[in-house]
Amino acid sequence: MNLISIEKIVIIGTGRVATQLGSAFHNAGFSVAQVYGRNPRAAAMLAAKLDCPYTSDLGMIYHDADLYLLAVADDAISHISGELNQIRGLLVHTSGFQPVSAIHQEISRKGVFYPLQTFSFDRNPVFSEIPFFVEADNEADTQLLEQLAFKLSSTVVRSTSQQRQQLHLAAVFVCNFSNAMYDMGHELIKSNQLNFDLLKPLIRETAEKALQMDPSLAQTGPARRNDNNVLMAHRQILQQYPQLSSVYASVTDYILNKYHNTGYEQL
Amino acid sequence: MNLISIEKIVIIGTGRVATQLGSAFHNAGFSVAQVYGRNPRAAAMLAAKLDCPYTSDLGMIYHDADLYLLAVADDAISHISGELNQIRGLLVHTSGFQPVSAIHQEISRKGVFYPLQTFSFDRNPVFSEIPFFVEADNEADTQLLEQLAFKLSSTVVRSTSQQRQQLHLAAVFVCNFSNAMYDMGHELIKSNQLNFDLLKPLIRETAEKALQMDPSLAQTGPARRNDNNVLMAHRQILQQYPQLSSVYASVTDYILNKYHNTGYEQL
Repeated sequence: MNLISIEKIVIIGTGRVATQLGSAFHNAGFSVAQVYGRNPRAAAMLAAKLDCPYTSDLGMIYHDADLYLLAVADDAISHISGELNQIRGLLVHTSGFQPVSAIHQEISRKGVFYPLQTFSFDRNPVFSEIPFFVEADNEADTQLLEQLAFKLSSTVVRSTSQQRQQLHLAAVFVCNFSNAMYDMGHELIKSNQLNFDLLKPLIRETAEKALQMDPSLAQTGPARRNDNNVLMAHRQILQQYPQLSSVYASVTDYILNKYHNTGYEQL
Repeated sequence: MNLISIEKIVIIGTGRVATQLGSAFHNAGFSVAQVYGRNPRAAAMLAAKLDCPYTSDLGMIYHDADLYLLAVADDAISHISGELNQIRGLLVHTSGFQPVSAIHQEISRKGVFYPLQTFSFDRNPVFSEIPFFVEADNEADTQLLEQLAFKLSSTVVRSTSQQRQQLHLAAVFVCNFSNAMYDMGHELIKSNQLNFDLLKPLIRETAEKALQMDPSLAQTGPARRNDNNVLMAHRQILQQYPQLSSVYASVTDYILNKYHNTGYEQL
């Protein structure tokens, strides 16, 4: 089995991952054969972008494709793959969290093709920089996915389901949770009649620093300095924001424990 | 009083803020007259950079400067300014958190000159993009600081001590806390024998998104989707990481409350 045999790709799903991965394959010179989407309008839109036919009927998905890219919600993986028991090609899901075994047991060739990135409909990611994590049930299919991923990106890693799950958790912290921090900053600055734009250079520089040094070396702020006056004053201000107060306590506690062997409750 | 009268600037402090602000003034064509640093070696190094003499004796600080930039630790502001009761120039601190009144009462002209950015010794920030927050006891000095800040940056905001304190708290969330999230991701990925570099494209894209859209629109992840299976599985993995577990709980609770009117403990 080599890459030459991936001629027919079916994209299942019309969300952000399906759209961006479908476009990446399209741009890399692969021809996408078909798009499936539950919602015909969304399927039509993505199919137009990828220059191919679409269907919103599971029963009409081609049986003879080489690769099925199942980019759907985690809890739809089992159901949709269960409807595809007549296919012979390799079926992969794109979830960071789900094991290969989330794919229905009647599918003979299954795997995972997980790009570690946060996707939007309207922002074009630089695919060559996105790490791909691949996994399959056998060596031939693993190599196939590896080679395929290298057509899109320069970073491809074989990983077990368990490794990928922990990686996905790390991604929740650096992506979803750092965005939540931005959102909390937004809430605080808005309630003070100032504009969120004022925080943007700081957000950019904080991320840039993390790209260049170990984040523990880049850590600054009152908890890092163990500056009790500031910590107590912040606690005071945050009494009006109970949710933020609880986040403040837990993150400050993490930093105080790590750098000063003390905790927030000891203040 | 106009900007022409700022001819003699004394930089007090040799830390990251003193170094970067001193260099910014130097680069903008101001001549720094003197550097003070408790540590003579650090003072000599910064003075060499700024082409000026230095002292490590508080009693030797020039009395006739137009502007004293007090870029020292918050808890040194009162003590150091107390030693400068013979000066006539404007003395400003650079703290986001401290009120103007942190400066010793015997100083007649006092203010705040706060650049909202995280500074490093070895990264040159783009000053024109950094928002400056200025405050002084009277209109003339406020205008002076405003004009001075506009020589370095295109964003200058007058703010009260109270506003600045809340702004500083917002900065703790978007900067110190998002960096802590990177650090937690680092801890998780390292314990899984994977490289932190794998998370960097995600960190960059997450920050880039926040520069272009409201962070509440950019929020993704299991808590945003109210995906209980993933949340429960993460809770399971995090049992080995009690500190991360508590941060996970508080941030997830914030997101669940905001988007789904439910909480983490209800899972």
